[in-house]
Amino acid sequence: MSEQPTDDNIEYDVFASRCPSRPTLANVTNRWGMLALGALADGPMRFNALARRVDGVSQKMLAQALQALERDGFVRRHVQTTNRLHVEYSLTNLGREIAGKLLELIDLLQTRMPTVIAAHEAYEERAED
Amino acid sequence: MSEQPTDDNIEYDVFASRCPSRPTLANVTNRWGMLALGALADGPMRFNALARRVDGVSQKMLAQALQALERDGFVRRHVQTTNRLHVEYSLTNLGREIAGKLLELIDLLQTRMPTVIAAHEAYEERAED
Repeated sequence: MSEQPTDDNIEYDVFASRCPSRPTLANVTNRWGMLALGALADGPMRFNALARRVDGVSQKMLAQALQALERDGFVRRHVQTTNRLHVEYSLTNLGREIAGKLLELIDLLQTRMPTVIAAHEAYEERAED
Repeated sequence: MSEQPTDDNIEYDVFASRCPSRPTLANVTNRWGMLALGALADGPMRFNALARRVDGVSQKMLAQALQALERDGFVRRHVQTTNRLHVEYSLTNLGREIAGKLLELIDLLQTRMPTVIAAHEAYEERAED
C-alpha cells in the first residue's frame, strides 16, 4: 500500500518562494505583528492598550497585523457586548509558542545592541577610507 | 561620584518607537535579511549562490539586505581579487548568535504549519457564517 500524503508529511520550507510558510513567517516577523505577539505574551489586552504598548503603530496597521495573526491561529479575538463593546485579544497556545521564540530573539538583540552600535561606527569609518 | 552613562547601561527596548534596536530588529527579520542570515548559518557563500538559496529574491533586494546586515555587524563581506573578482559573505560571531535564534523560530513555524493551515480553514468558515 502506498502512503497517502497528509498535511503532516508535507515538508514546509521557508527558503522555497511558494511555500505557504513564507507568508506566515512574514506575518509573525513584520514589525507590528512581532511587537503585537510580544506584547500579548504578557496577557490578554484590549485593542487600545495594545496600540499604546506597540509605540508608533497606527490603528489601521495594528488591526491588519492582528487580523493576519488571528487567521493564522496565533491570536484569538474576544468580543464581549455586556455594557459597551469590548474587544480583547489573547494568544492561542500556538501563539504563545511563537511569541516565546520571538521574545528570545528580541531579548538577545537588545542585549547585543552595544556591539551593533560599535559595528555601525566601524562601518562608517571604513566607508570614509 | 555619580555613575557615568555608558553604552552598556542604556536600556534598549524595541517597544519604544525611537529605540535604535527597532531598525536593527527590522534588518534581521525582514524577509530577505532573515533568509540570508539563515542561509549563511550553513557556511560562507558567494553572492550568486546566496541568491539561488534565497529563492525569489532579486539581486537588488539581496544586496540591500546584505549591506544592512554588514553595517549592523552580523555579516562580513570578503573581497578576493586573485584571478577574478570573488565576493563572499559569512556570519560574524554576533550574526551566528542571531541566525541561531532565527532558525529556531523558522523550524518551530515550519513544524507548526499544519496547525496554521487548519486555522486558515476555521477562519474562512467563521467568515462565511
